[in-house]
Amino acid sequence: MSKIRRIRLKTKKYIPVPGTSPGSIQLYEDALKPQITVYSYNSDEFYSEKINSIDELEIQIEKHKELHRWIEVKGIGDADLLTYIEKKFSINKLVIEDIADCRQRPKLDEYEDYLFVVSRMLYVDEQLEIENEQVSFILFPKLLISFQENYSNNISPVINRLKGGKGNIRSAGSSYLLYALNDLILDNYFTLIYKLGDELETIEELLYRRADKSLMFQTQNIKREMISIRRAAWPERDKINDMIRSDSKLIGKTSRTYLKDTYDHTMQIIDLIENYKDLTTSLIDMNLTLISQRMNEIMKVLTIISSIFIPLTFIAGVYGMNFAIEDPKTGKFLNNNMPELYNENGYLYTMGGMLIIAIAQMIYFWRKGWLNKS
Amino acid sequence: MSKIRRIRLKTKKYIPVPGTSPGSIQLYEDALKPQITVYSYNSDEFYSEKINSIDELEIQIEKHKELHRWIEVKGIGDADLLTYIEKKFSINKLVIEDIADCRQRPKLDEYEDYLFVVSRMLYVDEQLEIENEQVSFILFPKLLISFQENYSNNISPVINRLKGGKGNIRSAGSSYLLYALNDLILDNYFTLIYKLGDELETIEELLYRRADKSLMFQTQNIKREMISIRRAAWPERDKINDMIRSDSKLIGKTSRTYLKDTYDHTMQIIDLIENYKDLTTSLIDMNLTLISQRMNEIMKVLTIISSIFIPLTFIAGVYGMNFAIEDPKTGKFLNNNMPELYNENGYLYTMGGMLIIAIAQMIYFWRKGWLNKS
Amino acid sequence: MSKIRRIRLKTKKYIPVPGTSPGSIQLYEDALKPQITVYSYNSDEFYSEKINSIDELEIQIEKHKELHRWIEVKGIGDADLLTYIEKKFSINKLVIEDIADCRQRPKLDEYEDYLFVVSRMLYVDEQLEIENEQVSFILFPKLLISFQENYSNNISPVINRLKGGKGNIRSAGSSYLLYALNDLILDNYFTLIYKLGDELETIEELLYRRADKSLMFQTQNIKREMISIRRAAWPERDKINDMIRSDSKLIGKTSRTYLKDTYDHTMQIIDLIENYKDLTTSLIDMNLTLISQRMNEIMKVLTIISSIFIPLTFIAGVYGMNFAIEDPKTGKFLNNNMPELYNENGYLYTMGGMLIIAIAQMIYFWRKGWLNKS
Amino acid sequence: MSKIRRIRLKTKKYIPVPGTSPGSIQLYEDALKPQITVYSYNSDEFYSEKINSIDELEIQIEKHKELHRWIEVKGIGDADLLTYIEKKFSINKLVIEDIADCRQRPKLDEYEDYLFVVSRMLYVDEQLEIENEQVSFILFPKLLISFQENYSNNISPVINRLKGGKGNIRSAGSSYLLYALNDLILDNYFTLIYKLGDELETIEELLYRRADKSLMFQTQNIKREMISIRRAAWPERDKINDMIRSDSKLIGKTSRTYLKDTYDHTMQIIDLIENYKDLTTSLIDMNLTLISQRMNEIMKVLTIISSIFIPLTFIAGVYGMNFAIEDPKTGKFLNNNMPELYNENGYLYTMGGMLIIAIAQMIYFWRKGWLNKS
Amino acid sequence: MSKIRRIRLKTKKYIPVPGTSPGSIQLYEDALKPQITVYSYNSDEFYSEKINSIDELEIQIEKHKELHRWIEVKGIGDADLLTYIEKKFSINKLVIEDIADCRQRPKLDEYEDYLFVVSRMLYVDEQLEIENEQVSFILFPKLLISFQENYSNNISPVINRLKGGKGNIRSAGSSYLLYALNDLILDNYFTLIYKLGDELETIEELLYRRADKSLMFQTQNIKREMISIRRAAWPERDKINDMIRSDSKLIGKTSRTYLKDTYDHTMQIIDLIENYKDLTTSLIDMNLTLISQRMNEIMKVLTIISSIFIPLTFIAGVYGMNFAIEDPKTGKFLNNNMPELYNENGYLYTMGGMLIIAIAQMIYFWRKGWLNKS
Ligand SMILES: [Mg+2]
Ligand SMILES: [Mg+2]
Ligand SMILES: [Mg+2]
Ligand SMILES: [Mg+2]
Ligand SMILES: [Mg+2]
Ligand SMILES: [Mg+2]
Ligand SMILES: [Mg+2]
Ligand SMILES: [Mg+2]
Ligand SMILES: [Mg+2]
Ligand SMILES: [Mg+2]
Ligand SMILES: [Mg+2]
Ligand SMILES: [Mg+2]
Ligand SMILES: [Mg+2]
Ligand SMILES: [Mg+2]
Ligand SMILES: [Mg+2]
Ligand SMILES: [Mg+2]
Ligand SMILES: [Mg+2]
Ligand SMILES: [Mg+2]
Ligand SMILES: [Mg+2]
Ligand SMILES: [Mg+2]
Ligand SMILES: [Mg+2]
Ligand SMILES: [Mg+2]
Ligand SMILES: [Mg+2]
Ligand SMILES: [Mg+2]
Ligand SMILES: [Mg+2]
Ligand SMILES: [Mg+2]
Ligand SMILES: [Mg+2]
Ligand SMILES: [Mg+2]
Ligand SMILES: [Mg+2]
Ligand SMILES: [Mg+2]
Ligand SMILES: [Mg+2]
Repeated sequence: MSKIRRIRLKTKKYIPVPGTSPGSIQLYEDALKPQITVYSYNSDEFYSEKINSIDELEIQIEKHKELHRWIEVKGIGDADLLTYIEKKFSINKLVIEDIADCRQRPKLDEYEDYLFVVSRMLYVDEQLEIENEQVSFILFPKLLISFQENYSNNISPVINRLKGGKGNIRSAGSSYLLYALNDLILDNYFTLIYKLGDELETIEELLYRRADKSLMFQTQNIKREMISIRRAAWPERDKINDMIRSDSKLIGKTSRTYLKDTYDHTMQIIDLIENYKDLTTSLIDMNLTLISQRMNEIMKVLTIISSIFIPLTFIAGVYGMNFAIEDPKTGKFLNNNMPELYNENGYLYTMGGMLIIAIAQMIYFWRKGWLNKS
Repeated sequence: MSKIRRIRLKTKKYIPVPGTSPGSIQLYEDALKPQITVYSYNSDEFYSEKINSIDELEIQIEKHKELHRWIEVKGIGDADLLTYIEKKFSINKLVIEDIADCRQRPKLDEYEDYLFVVSRMLYVDEQLEIENEQVSFILFPKLLISFQENYSNNISPVINRLKGGKGNIRSAGSSYLLYALNDLILDNYFTLIYKLGDELETIEELLYRRADKSLMFQTQNIKREMISIRRAAWPERDKINDMIRSDSKLIGKTSRTYLKDTYDHTMQIIDLIENYKDLTTSLIDMNLTLISQRMNEIMKVLTIISSIFIPLTFIAGVYGMNFAIEDPKTGKFLNNNMPELYNENGYLYTMGGMLIIAIAQMIYFWRKGWLNKS
Repeated sequence: MSKIRRIRLKTKKYIPVPGTSPGSIQLYEDALKPQITVYSYNSDEFYSEKINSIDELEIQIEKHKELHRWIEVKGIGDADLLTYIEKKFSINKLVIEDIADCRQRPKLDEYEDYLFVVSRMLYVDEQLEIENEQVSFILFPKLLISFQENYSNNISPVINRLKGGKGNIRSAGSSYLLYALNDLILDNYFTLIYKLGDELETIEELLYRRADKSLMFQTQNIKREMISIRRAAWPERDKINDMIRSDSKLIGKTSRTYLKDTYDHTMQIIDLIENYKDLTTSLIDMNLTLISQRMNEIMKVLTIISSIFIPLTFIAGVYGMNFAIEDPKTGKFLNNNMPELYNENGYLYTMGGMLIIAIAQMIYFWRKGWLNKS
Repeated sequence: MSKIRRIRLKTKKYIPVPGTSPGSIQLYEDALKPQITVYSYNSDEFYSEKINSIDELEIQIEKHKELHRWIEVKGIGDADLLTYIEKKFSINKLVIEDIADCRQRPKLDEYEDYLFVVSRMLYVDEQLEIENEQVSFILFPKLLISFQENYSNNISPVINRLKGGKGNIRSAGSSYLLYALNDLILDNYFTLIYKLGDELETIEELLYRRADKSLMFQTQNIKREMISIRRAAWPERDKINDMIRSDSKLIGKTSRTYLKDTYDHTMQIIDLIENYKDLTTSLIDMNLTLISQRMNEIMKVLTIISSIFIPLTFIAGVYGMNFAIEDPKTGKFLNNNMPELYNENGYLYTMGGMLIIAIAQMIYFWRKGWLNKS
Repeated sequence: MSKIRRIRLKTKKYIPVPGTSPGSIQLYEDALKPQITVYSYNSDEFYSEKINSIDELEIQIEKHKELHRWIEVKGIGDADLLTYIEKKFSINKLVIEDIADCRQRPKLDEYEDYLFVVSRMLYVDEQLEIENEQVSFILFPKLLISFQENYSNNISPVINRLKGGKGNIRSAGSSYLLYALNDLILDNYFTLIYKLGDELETIEELLYRRADKSLMFQTQNIKREMISIRRAAWPERDKINDMIRSDSKLIGKTSRTYLKDTYDHTMQIIDLIENYKDLTTSLIDMNLTLISQRMNEIMKVLTIISSIFIPLTFIAGVYGMNFAIEDPKTGKFLNNNMPELYNENGYLYTMGGMLIIAIAQMIYFWRKGWLNKS
């Protein structure tokens, strides 16, 4: 059994408690302790501050009010922090609940003073598992707060561009930063899909050589992974579209133009996924055909050998019968009993007959095309 | 045959009578006697009263008119009660008919003075059957009447929160209570789907080890259960959406905001169901492949053994023939008849020849890959 | 071959003549002679009159003009009657053509002075065939004319309610009568679907015990019947919806409210059909799996028996060879030729060897799980 | 191999030249020389004139300008004629190009002074091939020009009704004539579909008796023919709908009412096609099952015979072994060597034992149900 | 294994870098050096100029400002050129990025001063690979800039028509040129689809003669190619539709009329693709059936031969048993032991019995229809 695939779908299990009051924060057991960084910037200035406590955060929030700020929270396992943010920025309880409950679909929720955006960040982690991480954003006029489920570093390129300071990222406001992060998250979809596509092509090559159970399972797994990516990609597309069409003033004109580009990317992602999904379906179908075809081959071998030798064995069996030429009691000759056995060339004639039968059958099978390699 | 599944789909059979006048109450034979409780509450006060007769109900309805009230009816098997409520609150006959006929799809019907809402509550009961219970609601400005098909206790968490008295549930009006009950009902969908999902994963694990008829049937059953949950979930989604978009004044602003959260949940439910439905399809396909593959294995064993021994048996048969070396009548030697038998090493040569044939075939099968474990 | 199903799809064949002038009446050869009844009623009065000629009809039409009237026509095989009605009530030729050509889909056609409504009435007739009968309605302000293809009595419950005289049916006008008839027709769908569903459940039970060709065909037939019911149900739903949304004054407010209830029923019908259609698909798939699985079992029996006995037979064949221990001509002993045969316990050793081989194979098959019941 | 089907899909191959200037006329090699007839008519008068040259056409066009006229062109293989019509009536080049390029989908193109309508006329020709002929129409206020790809006579019923002179066809204007021709073309769809349906039913009957390769291919072919009819029917439906909803004054009110009737017919056509397509799918599935089931039967015969006789043959082989009861050299008796052979009733016991084994197996197979007819 | 197909899908692999700043030009490694030609024309004049440097381009752009101009760029592998064009014509960065990143879907992006149009040009190149080349257009009032990924000559017919100077192409403005190029690109789809269709028909013919693995793979490949063409054709259709419905003044009235014709072509393309896709599905299904049917044939041969000879061989085996007629020790005759062997005609009777058994079985198989050619 061949083993090609290395990437697996990471499975998570949540145990929701029905009937809890809406807006209450339900943390997962293994939710990570938050790591907070506050970035303050405009075209000219850039500050980055690691935060170790809610008090430090309070201080930092009151500083640099004239700049654009980004509060980056990695890990959501601290109910106090979430409650602090809820109170500090007058955020709806339901938003905080959604940040904590990492099963949200990508969406845009518009509130009067802020926007709430949820993204699903898909990538392959170091254990080669497909991680499906929730990233939530709250967008205020000059402030973006982001919440990541894990400590992963996928968004570091945007941080580097922010540090670097060129282009729109420092000048086009918080909604542009939100766009840049969403665009980056969706770029990671390409990386993931291409990786799965590579595995698929390896499987396809192997399939032509030898269809086996393991290839089948691996194809099925990639299909399921593609389906689960698609299940994230479609609402991502809808979300981006909602952001473009929203009449909220929080999303600047430049950001809107760039979001259209991201929309194109979501369409490309969906096209790619459909492509690979079709490919998996086609591979599974081929596999089934190959198994049937192989069965045909096995049966042909059996049938050819049996058909040739069973009749011959019968003939041999006939001449192995013990019908007596002479009555043991009377000594009388029983001339009808197998006189062939006493013919001078009986053996040669029999062997010759057998050869003719075998050759006739070979011709028959050859004509039916059973002797060709299929 | 392995038996993993324990949860079954409960089947009900209704025998409708075509042509009965619309709006007439048709009770099911096994409809339960109603158990009524009246809750009266506002932010400060909370009263709960068990009701034993229509007269007691009449009295209770006239009390506490300044508070919000919830008349909870469990069991719908009393036509008098339904008629009393119809008259008392001037409710359309069709609404009462729908409450009694527990086959309604989730829906919102808007009437001038009240809203009629139907939910399907899905859960696993003590007999491990999936119960699909109808819960109907009539919403007036300060009054909610709920009708449950059975005595099940699934909504007790909301009653506890109402007793507890914190949060919106006591202050945000009857439409919030309606929201809270609907949200709870939908939370139970998650519980059910996760339970089925667990069974599915057990089946998947077993499948890799051994595909059998029973696993196939159980997968098919889960698929059908998922489809029947989906058939409830889609109209639930539409109903919640109708409630959000309705311009009825009966649904308060707070309730509307919270209903959006419930809408998110219905979308998550649908995603989950699709996920598991895809998984069942994939398992069924794999099962079919595994059965074919197993057939191939069986055939290989047969073909290898037959192909090797049938020719050898033929050879043995040949040398078991009784062609005579000496004519019994004349005593003349018939030297062409099987001289091999009288060769000093005839036996050894023959056995050696057989061994060579067997080895040649083994090499052939090994080259074809039939000797590998597939 | 087991025979469970009794209900069959009735097939009709129409031979349309292309190019006939539109609006011309083309009667079917076996169209039934009309049986006409005129009902005249209001809340207080009720008259019912059997009509035997167009002249009698003319007289009856001129009577009771102050009451609501319903002209019930069963059987449409009289072009003169149809032409009389066309002229008398100034009805469009196309309407009359549609009444005569019983292949119409359910629809609502709005004309200035009247509405034309077509329903498909599905039910199981006495020959246990699914009858798909066209019922057409022309609705005037105080007059309903109905045309039934056959003499079937499915709508008698409405006639009884009309006679009984309680409820809206006598007071809410002709459009309510139209509603009541449509509702009844759709109630009959439930009866039909439940009957098919019962047959399906019987088949399902049998399937688990024994998959055979006949069960497969019967499932396929139910699937096709379900599809053909669905093909009537969807346009019925659209028609009812058109009637609800129509701004024609001919449909009263009460009737509209009740039609919403009928709309619910069409949705329930469609849900039921989808449910059973999914079930048929699932049964067909299971059947295929069971056939494959059965093949595996058959092959296992063959393979086990062949694999055990073919090698043993070979050994027996070897010791049945006639290699001579003594040269017949010279009398010289050929000691290499099958000395086993002359060993004191050769036979016992051989039989023991065979037993060991057989046991080894049994262990091999037992380990592969081939000896278990699958 | 049985041969039932007679109707075949006619295949045409066009070799388009990419990059030719739009609006240029590209005639097919085998395009037919046009046969032109001009009909001039109103309620009272009717003239029909065969035309042999463009000059004659010019003369005829200038005559009878007060009447409604219909220029019927059969065969489009004359670029001069097409160019003459383009210039004479100031028709857009693209229209003329579409008339010549007979691959157009059914459509309505609205121009300022005229409408351009394309229909696909499907019918079985004398060679029993399904012909898919393009019929194009240009509608002016009092003039209809029709272009048929071939000389087929399918539209003669309308010409006869025009000659006959009764009904709307002479009085309701050119758009009514256009309607009548379109309606006739669609009536021919019914004829075609019913013919294919008849073949399908013959195949279905045969299938129950014997599933073979040829039935499979023929079913597949009907399925493909149904799909190709559907591909014409859907855009026909859209076209008719466009004509009904168009606000062009060229389509009269009467014509619009009658077009709604034609719209009903397109819906019926689509329903019929879907019905038959479902039937083909179901037949293909059944065929596959029958093939599998037949395989099971074949295997059962093989397995029963092999299982019974292989063990018996082994036993016979054992007693055919030549273990010696007496040492040929020493004459010593070897009493362990096959003493059964020298038992007085050894043969009878052995044969009895064989019989018991055979009967035991028969019982086993009978219990498994393998001896029943499936 | 037969090899019919020659056309293959060309696969490209892009390695995107997530997180790069949007609007940055990322050239592919093997992007071609641009070849630039500037065409300047109006109804009377026509100039064509090959450009070898950005400086030459600058000069050429400033010349002939009164004429319509077309800057044709083949090969996009020069970031400087792209940046020059961006600056020179004040084009949005995102447009330039899309021109360089050749994975765009067909689309229309409307900017204030210009339109950005992306087409996918599909054709078979000299290596018989299906090339999927991006062609991008920027449309200004009197200027069209086109960017082709490769040096392919597919659009030369339009250049020739432009040189030729007849028709709208020289007079109807830049948007007409844009139309003409898009129309040509879509005409190439027909050529490609017809080529694949030809291969498909060859495969279909072969399939009826002999189903093999290679035909299956080739059909699957054509199916995938059809799907990938469809994936380009649908957004092409949407793009053309967007261009028709756009209210931009950049697209002239004539161009709009002609674009409707192109829209028709996209619909025809989609119809063709669906047709061929259905055909591939049907071929794959038939192939599977044929494989099963072939298995049946193989099994029949095996079963017939085995069923006839195995019982006969058993009988021969019985009479090859060595039960002794005479006790070797006592010389006593054991008369029950196989007296048949000492019957005068035992051999003839046995052979006769065998013949009868064989004939009986042949009749059985003939009745079951196993001896017919299927
Ligand atoms: Mg991007
Ligand atoms: Mg989703
Ligand atoms: Mg989705
Ligand atoms: Mg882009
Ligand atoms: Mg795109
Ligand atoms: Mg499949
Ligand atoms: Mg909830
Ligand atoms: Mg539903
Ligand atoms: Mg549904
Ligand atoms: Mg939420
Ligand atoms: Mg959600
Ligand atoms: Mg899906
Ligand atoms: Mg219909
Ligand atoms: Mg009803
Ligand atoms: Mg329909
Ligand atoms: Mg349908
Ligand atoms: Mg109801
Ligand atoms: Mg309903
Ligand atoms: Mg469904
Ligand atoms: Mg299937
Ligand atoms: Mg018609
Ligand atoms: Mg089409
Ligand atoms: Mg289509
Ligand atoms: Mg009609
Ligand atoms: Mg219709
Ligand atoms: Mg074109
Ligand atoms: Mg696409
Ligand atoms: Mg697509
Ligand atoms: Mg055209
Ligand atoms: Mg077209
Ligand atoms: Mg299939």
